[in-house]
Amino acid sequence: MIEIPPRMVGLDWGTTSCRAYLLGEGGAVLDRRLDGRGVLALSHSSENRTAAFEQEIEGLCGDWLRRDPGLPLVACGMVGSNQGWAEADYRHLPVDLTERPESLTEVPTSLGSLFIIPGLFKDGKVGSPSEHPDVIRGEETQLLGALPSHAEGTDDDGARSPAVVVLPGTHTKWLRLDGTLVSDFVTTMTGELFGLVMQHSIVARLAEEPSAPDMDAFDRGLDVAFSAAGPLPAPPTDIATSLFSARTLVMAGELEPAAVKDYVSGLMIGAEVERFARCWIGEEDRAGGPITVCANAQLGKRYARALERAGIASALAPEDAVVAGLWRTAVALGLIEKENS
Amino acid sequence: MIEIPPRMVGLDWGTTSCRAYLLGEGGAVLDRRLDGRGVLALSHSSENRTAAFEQEIEGLCGDWLRRDPGLPLVACGMVGSNQGWAEADYRHLPVDLTERPESLTEVPTSLGSLFIIPGLFKDGKVGSPSEHPDVIRGEETQLLGALPSHAEGTDDDGARSPAVVVLPGTHTKWLRLDGTLVSDFVTTMTGELFGLVMQHSIVARLAEEPSAPDMDAFDRGLDVAFSAAGPLPAPPTDIATSLFSARTLVMAGELEPAAVKDYVSGLMIGAEVERFARCWIGEEDRAGGPITVCANAQLGKRYARALERAGIASALAPEDAVVAGLWRTAVALGLIEKENS
Repeated sequence: MIEIPPRMVGLDWGTTSCRAYLLGEGGAVLDRRLDGRGVLALSHSSENRTAAFEQEIEGLCGDWLRRDPGLPLVACGMVGSNQGWAEADYRHLPVDLTERPESLTEVPTSLGSLFIIPGLFKDGKVGSPSEHPDVIRGEETQLLGALPSHAEGTDDDGARSPAVVVLPGTHTKWLRLDGTLVSDFVTTMTGELFGLVMQHSIVARLAEEPSAPDMDAFDRGLDVAFSAAGPLPAPPTDIATSLFSARTLVMAGELEPAAVKDYVSGLMIGAEVERFARCWIGEEDRAGGPITVCANAQLGKRYARALERAGIASALAPEDAVVAGLWRTAVALGLIEKENS
Repeated sequence: MIEIPPRMVGLDWGTTSCRAYLLGEGGAVLDRRLDGRGVLALSHSSENRTAAFEQEIEGLCGDWLRRDPGLPLVACGMVGSNQGWAEADYRHLPVDLTERPESLTEVPTSLGSLFIIPGLFKDGKVGSPSEHPDVIRGEETQLLGALPSHAEGTDDDGARSPAVVVLPGTHTKWLRLDGTLVSDFVTTMTGELFGLVMQHSIVARLAEEPSAPDMDAFDRGLDVAFSAAGPLPAPPTDIATSLFSARTLVMAGELEPAAVKDYVSGLMIGAEVERFARCWIGEEDRAGGPITVCANAQLGKRYARALERAGIASALAPEDAVVAGLWRTAVALGLIEKENS
């Protein structure tokens, strides 16, 4: 019997970055390299895309893999998209996150096989124009890592309440879970739109980079977003309309240029959370306990603040949830020894 | 008594372009030059901004002004903003468009004085976070030109119904008028966001330029936007959320890459019109007759279609409304002889 080493290399390989983790016993982080290039930068060299991805692995963690040949190499994220290295499958909803994925995409590399974790897919409802197909790549692993470990137990046969998890980012994902089963999710592009607005729009021209986050300006943005919560708001404060206030308030001397960024952050996160709270998060979801927010501390705080404004309690997941998710997936797949517990 | 020539040069000088018109008797267009550079291109040379603007006039219509010295030169638009040539005043609401502006910004040039028409300003309501200050530059002139000429008459003392006018563009303006009196307006950045999304976002990466406008795709976008019109839409189809469908539908083979642009156009114009129809256009507005749409034929058609979906009749204003507006303003200011009528 071959002894499987309780170690692995996990890659969180997204659109704009690649983070590599050397993991040991129980998923402990032994080493990390956080400055790898993302799919966007690497896929531009479409001629030699494979070589570009392979070089990136080599540069990031070639030493780990050479020192310890045969170390399992597992990745999640946009690396498995059609713009990534190799297109990985999707698991179709409903999906139990703790179940071993049926298929895993294996990519041969000079450093051994790279396994890419499948994403999640939701079919669009036929005949309902507002229900379109939706996809997730990478967040399923982050989510698995954020699940409390007791949720994986099968001894709890009692009724489970749905729980809502939000993963803010470039493309924020709102998910509904029943225990470890993902029953629904929705993507919203607030983060990407925020980036476009603060980089390229007329609002950006008046803004100055703040020296520190200005949470008063953020709260002011929330005020505007939530003022539209009534049945007949006037004027309609969707983002396309409210964004212009970032310009006119500066022009009128009522907003500092250095406060624009956080004000716009409040407008946009506020609009998103207000809407999801009103239209998507039901009574049953609220009964399932606080909403879990999976994000870095700074962004997580903003969502928590907006959710509080909507009367919804939230709890922040550990920042390295994706690392725990990579480890748990590798264990479920039998790529590493199940730890004794 | 000096005879004032019934001719003038009018400039529609906006953010991205400058259009010059040589106008004669009754506002007839004798000649036009449509390829001048806008404020954005000219203000970049901040050192010699004045010289850049002056050169642009010289190049566009120096021959007109030299052939006919003393010809009045009148401009409207962003040329009068703090990023333009000289900052022109605003008139504060309510404003009667046919009234002679109290102040006119006069800029000396080597070709004679340039007069810049003031914009419109709406104060933000203190204590109401969603009512922010708002501004207009240029559309006030377009609007004046779009008014039916009988609206200028003072012999009609009967009650007037409010009327709504929409001027779609980079920053779309929705205005409420009582006869020739502007009582309210709201800016919405749908056009600019559409440009950002189709130029820089992940949606743009999957899109192909259509060979001709695809109005079926546009209508499909409207379907999605209007499906959220109920009191509790699920999932919430604001633009940040619905935009992602342009990506997933292409991935699922349910939308052609060449249809993405018009689909997104439908999503975004639909979301705007649905919201304004629901939250801003009241019963009294609808009683005031069809909504006037001031835009080029292609864009105007899209707004008309979306308004129809909302059960609101609309009428397209003549495309050259801004030319009529420049003429009428010059007449009101006594810069040119009032035509005999």
